[in-house]
Amino acid sequence: MRVLILGGDGYLGWPTAMQFSNRGHDVHVVDNYLRRKAHEEAGTGSLTPVLPGLPERVAAWKDVTGKEIGVTEGDLCEWSVTELVFGEFRPEAVIHYGEMPSAPYSMKSREHAVFTQTNNVVNTLNVIFAIEQFVPDCHLVKLGTMGEYGTPNIDIEEGYIEIEHNGRSDLLPMPKLPGSFYHLSKVHDSHNIHFACRVRGMRATDLNQGVVYGIETEETTLDPRLVTRFDYDDVFGTALNRFCVQAVAGHPLTVYGSGGQTRGYLNIVDTLQCVELAVMNPAERGEMRVYNQFTEQFSVTELAELVQKAGAEYGIGVEVRSIPNPRVEMEDHYYNAQHSKLLDLGLRPHLLSETLVESMFGVIEKNKEHIDREHILPRDSWRPSA
Amino acid sequence: MRVLILGGDGYLGWPTAMQFSNRGHDVHVVDNYLRRKAHEEAGTGSLTPVLPGLPERVAAWKDVTGKEIGVTEGDLCEWSVTELVFGEFRPEAVIHYGEMPSAPYSMKSREHAVFTQTNNVVNTLNVIFAIEQFVPDCHLVKLGTMGEYGTPNIDIEEGYIEIEHNGRSDLLPMPKLPGSFYHLSKVHDSHNIHFACRVRGMRATDLNQGVVYGIETEETTLDPRLVTRFDYDDVFGTALNRFCVQAVAGHPLTVYGSGGQTRGYLNIVDTLQCVELAVMNPAERGEMRVYNQFTEQFSVTELAELVQKAGAEYGIGVEVRSIPNPRVEMEDHYYNAQHSKLLDLGLRPHLLSETLVESMFGVIEKNKEHIDREHILPRDSWRPSA
Repeated sequence: MRVLILGGDGYLGWPTAMQFSNRGHDVHVVDNYLRRKAHEEAGTGSLTPVLPGLPERVAAWKDVTGKEIGVTEGDLCEWSVTELVFGEFRPEAVIHYGEMPSAPYSMKSREHAVFTQTNNVVNTLNVIFAIEQFVPDCHLVKLGTMGEYGTPNIDIEEGYIEIEHNGRSDLLPMPKLPGSFYHLSKVHDSHNIHFACRVRGMRATDLNQGVVYGIETEETTLDPRLVTRFDYDDVFGTALNRFCVQAVAGHPLTVYGSGGQTRGYLNIVDTLQCVELAVMNPAERGEMRVYNQFTEQFSVTELAELVQKAGAEYGIGVEVRSIPNPRVEMEDHYYNAQHSKLLDLGLRPHLLSETLVESMFGVIEKNKEHIDREHILPRDSWRPSA
Repeated sequence: MRVLILGGDGYLGWPTAMQFSNRGHDVHVVDNYLRRKAHEEAGTGSLTPVLPGLPERVAAWKDVTGKEIGVTEGDLCEWSVTELVFGEFRPEAVIHYGEMPSAPYSMKSREHAVFTQTNNVVNTLNVIFAIEQFVPDCHLVKLGTMGEYGTPNIDIEEGYIEIEHNGRSDLLPMPKLPGSFYHLSKVHDSHNIHFACRVRGMRATDLNQGVVYGIETEETTLDPRLVTRFDYDDVFGTALNRFCVQAVAGHPLTVYGSGGQTRGYLNIVDTLQCVELAVMNPAERGEMRVYNQFTEQFSVTELAELVQKAGAEYGIGVEVRSIPNPRVEMEDHYYNAQHSKLLDLGLRPHLLSETLVESMFGVIEKNKEHIDREHILPRDSWRPSA
């Protein structure tokens, strides 16, 4: 199958590209290095030493496996780029990771909010129109986020909820309470994609993903040059990954507020499994499937305690410290999100264990000299300054 | 009160500005003449001869009433403009009509879709940040559209719906099924504004307006120079207004498809009443109120029949003709939208009557020589070309 991967230089995009290539698919990756540039501006970077760009990465991949991956370095917000990629590669499936992915980034300033929403909405609109124009039968697999739902006081369904009201009923999109300008951008994308399916006959699967943890996949471990990026700073790093780095660095784990914030989580190898299941089970024309893509729910405190225990096993003392929450979010709330559809398709979850955390400690320890302790604490409050 | 009106050159913006000025408020208007430029490009224009720009309009207003209205000609997508307007005028209420308002325009091409969404989302984000920075207590009154809801198979509530699910319940945003890239842009705005209220403490009222008809308000009739614009073309004209022009022009009424499409409608004088009620009853900090702003529901066929009857009274024969629907929409559907909140605040509706339609015929007849019959039939299909 011809599989186009947007954001193919990212934490998940690069391992996904290698997996699909390894399975024998014809893979093409696109990236404009948005995250690398944002890191450069902020003076932060990946813990793991990733190769400088996609040409070097696919060359290493070819060297190790003999397989080829095509590359476009460019910005999908520019129609000339999108048009060229879709017109020439003519994908049968598109896996769309190609967005500004950070909530804290989007909350830094007006400029960051506007950039995040413009970038994400415009490149996704371009992808929708490129599919219509060049490959109308192509299946769009779009990475969304569980954060689109926020924390409602009812169970979170997978995309749609049957609402009974005044004696009638309808299956409607699950209401969304996104918690940042970034999460809002993903809600905007979801509405645009739903429209493209409902009204214009596109086929799409929206993967509302939980927080991903882990460093290694089958392909990244084939050769040190194939490692994926691993962010641990306050802007691009996510909860469990950050805690593991903090533990190895001897930094207290930064629990925001009371730590009762509960979210869905999954292992990076399960992300790859889910995306593959979505691609191999395409939606019908006119249909937007929505899956909640995570395997377990944890509160921040539960994660911190797990890392502390794994630290004790591993032989490092880990301190847990609550710091004032820079975010505006509920710290004590109901949370129960459905996540059975990917299991029904065959997902075999790799659940979180102390053993997994300890193996992450091992990889982090090898790269310990790259940890910059200056970028562990959050720098920006999400409250308006006025 | 200091009232800032965004989109103050428009069909509703200009009469709103005059009304608030007439009531003794300190009014400032902003417009970048987006609609005038889009008309110029398309070779279309207002049936009524509006003055060439806001400086001329406020000069005429001063001449007639002695009252002053401030003017900024500029684009709110440019932060330098937004910053200047909010920093200098320091509004207590903002009435936000300042968006690309046409569904057919947004469906013309990829460029039109991207422009509509970028323009509407970015200028509204700028307004949110300007309120936070300069006037955090200011009340944002945002014009949304009933089209955000689409045509679900359940009653449409005013903004929020109580959902009972698996033994729990929550009051959540009403799910949205917008029918064009324009309507999607308004859904994006609604989510962004809801976030700004929920998370950042803004106060806002979102007015999900039905289709507005009518030409005259108390202030537009004071002097011929104070007339508001009146669009009847396929891109900026709306159902009833278009039918009235078609009747006077001796053109068959263009019913799209079967004509069963049902929507909420209201008289332009009721728009002005509703906006005033919203401004005089501000939301609390942290609250986004949502009102469904219309007074009656009609199907397209019902409207066409009403215009036909009024034509008979008036002495013109009116033919009703179904043409292939250029839009993708249900033509036979359930539709029942709540609209009690503005009535509770004191709205006294001016319901649609043959008399009103005949008075519209009168105004249209006076401007009959401006009718361009070439721009009555729809030119663009909403279906993708591929």
